[in-house]
Amino acid sequence: MPFSSLNDVQQKLTNLPQINKTTASQASGRDATLTKPAGALGRLEELAVWASGWQGQHPPTLNNPQVIVFAGNHGVCAQGVSAFPPEVTVQMVANFENGGAAINQLAKAFGASFSVHPLDLDNPTKDFTQGPAMTEDECVEAINIGWNTVSASSDMLVVGEMGIGNTTVASALSAALYGGDGKQWVGPGTGVSADGMAQKARVIDAGLEKHSSSMQNPLHVLQRLGGRELAAMFGAILSARYKNIPVILDGFVTCAAAAILAKANENALDHCVSGHVSAEPGHILLLQHLKKEPLLNLKMRLGEGSGAALALGILKGALATHNGMASFAEAGVSEKDD
Amino acid sequence: MPFSSLNDVQQKLTNLPQINKTTASQASGRDATLTKPAGALGRLEELAVWASGWQGQHPPTLNNPQVIVFAGNHGVCAQGVSAFPPEVTVQMVANFENGGAAINQLAKAFGASFSVHPLDLDNPTKDFTQGPAMTEDECVEAINIGWNTVSASSDMLVVGEMGIGNTTVASALSAALYGGDGKQWVGPGTGVSADGMAQKARVIDAGLEKHSSSMQNPLHVLQRLGGRELAAMFGAILSARYKNIPVILDGFVTCAAAAILAKANENALDHCVSGHVSAEPGHILLLQHLKKEPLLNLKMRLGEGSGAALALGILKGALATHNGMASFAEAGVSEKDD
Repeated sequence: MPFSSLNDVQQKLTNLPQINKTTASQASGRDATLTKPAGALGRLEELAVWASGWQGQHPPTLNNPQVIVFAGNHGVCAQGVSAFPPEVTVQMVANFENGGAAINQLAKAFGASFSVHPLDLDNPTKDFTQGPAMTEDECVEAINIGWNTVSASSDMLVVGEMGIGNTTVASALSAALYGGDGKQWVGPGTGVSADGMAQKARVIDAGLEKHSSSMQNPLHVLQRLGGRELAAMFGAILSARYKNIPVILDGFVTCAAAAILAKANENALDHCVSGHVSAEPGHILLLQHLKKEPLLNLKMRLGEGSGAALALGILKGALATHNGMASFAEAGVSEKDD
Repeated sequence: MPFSSLNDVQQKLTNLPQINKTTASQASGRDATLTKPAGALGRLEELAVWASGWQGQHPPTLNNPQVIVFAGNHGVCAQGVSAFPPEVTVQMVANFENGGAAINQLAKAFGASFSVHPLDLDNPTKDFTQGPAMTEDECVEAINIGWNTVSASSDMLVVGEMGIGNTTVASALSAALYGGDGKQWVGPGTGVSADGMAQKARVIDAGLEKHSSSMQNPLHVLQRLGGRELAAMFGAILSARYKNIPVILDGFVTCAAAAILAKANENALDHCVSGHVSAEPGHILLLQHLKKEPLLNLKMRLGEGSGAALALGILKGALATHNGMASFAEAGVSEKDD
């Protein structure tokens, strides 16, 4: 196991591997020769350079995208924060394993491998209004699982989650990291009413109050207010950085896990792009804090990595054009008049 | 040939085929059973219903998407409205034929057939500041070509264009259809300077003035200010309506051609979605007039159908989830608490 304590994790967050400037610059150089007006492919051009730089290779590839879904259960569900009962988490894991969920179809559509990792579902985290959601050992164990699930042979990573109650957890983490109260960060999640949202906000405020003396270190925020699937996503995103794998971030819950990385080291998400902005209202706020502009805005709010997996299609287009187009010289096309 | 005059075309624009309510409702019905919170796939859910309704089949398919690029040359280039010389149109047609352009890579990436149709490139349209860009026969011929290139076996259509000078043409059409002067509708196109944009605006204003007495009928606007590739796209979009093929609209020039349809019959674009909004400033204005919300906003401004072809990836995700997901009953997943 890579980590035996949160201090180990903290160490790994310093001196992170950086972008390969050589391969990034090879990509920029090639982009400038392709048969299109400069910049006319917009963000597709940026994506090709980003992928090439963080993969440390040119041309960039999308041969082995990996989609990983982590599932967890949350003690805070006892406070009535979700429109669905907690047993749906384990039922949806079975659905993932049987290939019936949205993320299965999207992973298949874009040629990605898929795996789901249920994390001790019979043993929900503790209700964070009563005490820390996880012990340090539980948190580290989930981070280790996340780290280990990332295959070194992947060339793009999507992490996603399933866990009834986890938009409440994500809202609590966001408030702890960036300020604001429960009301500012809360949303309908799977579809709670206005009363349900008010209850979520109260529960978050109670959690923030309970742990107010331990919110200085982002890793302690993760342990006290987070959940296993968030800790695992945190570990997977960090692991990808060390394995030269760029990451496409998914929705609100994934970005709350990613925000722990960003708070611990402001450059820790440089290898990540935002795949989409979800309809969950806290997500756009979180993306603004993370300084990430989403690739897609399609009013999705499912989790499971679904928005990021859909953005694999955009990456596919970006790499297909970058790698496959002819240059002005090859095609005998006249360049811009000066 | 389907049309021998613009009056024939006008006839075809009345009593258009409508959406198949049965198949659209089958899609809505299935959507409600799938293992996700209601609405959680956002616009993907709308797209599945739209595709099913306009294809007149359930489940909807994306087995034979067709990408067609029409190319034309423009007499108005004599007024110095483009950053590239007019010979680039024919050079880029060769690039399309050789598989070297952006649209070739995108069509291949998303499994679409591709064809390019150069339209009398050695005989540019007339400079619209001097007289009608096309004769009625020339305009009808281009519409016929567009109509005939749409294969009845396609299940999704992307039309795109290539034509040095054609953002000036699109701006002139937009102003003629929706009001405003050249300055309001003009943009950098392939990359003209501020001076170049001022020149484009002057040229457009001169064209609007020249033809001011013949702007009542949208088909006359197309003939007098348009171009062959725009007339062909008009014909292809209309043809798709009669062949049960939904259409993904591309950028500013494509939407200017589509706007002729919308002005002639306000329901004529119901079978179309907007694939993306481009960086060309007139496009977002035009989409507002067309009441279309773009699927993508990636700062692209290439034309060629490239933004719409990229949106095929979104359609692919929409249909994969709609057709492939398990229902709550099939997966044994509990539904929302009431």
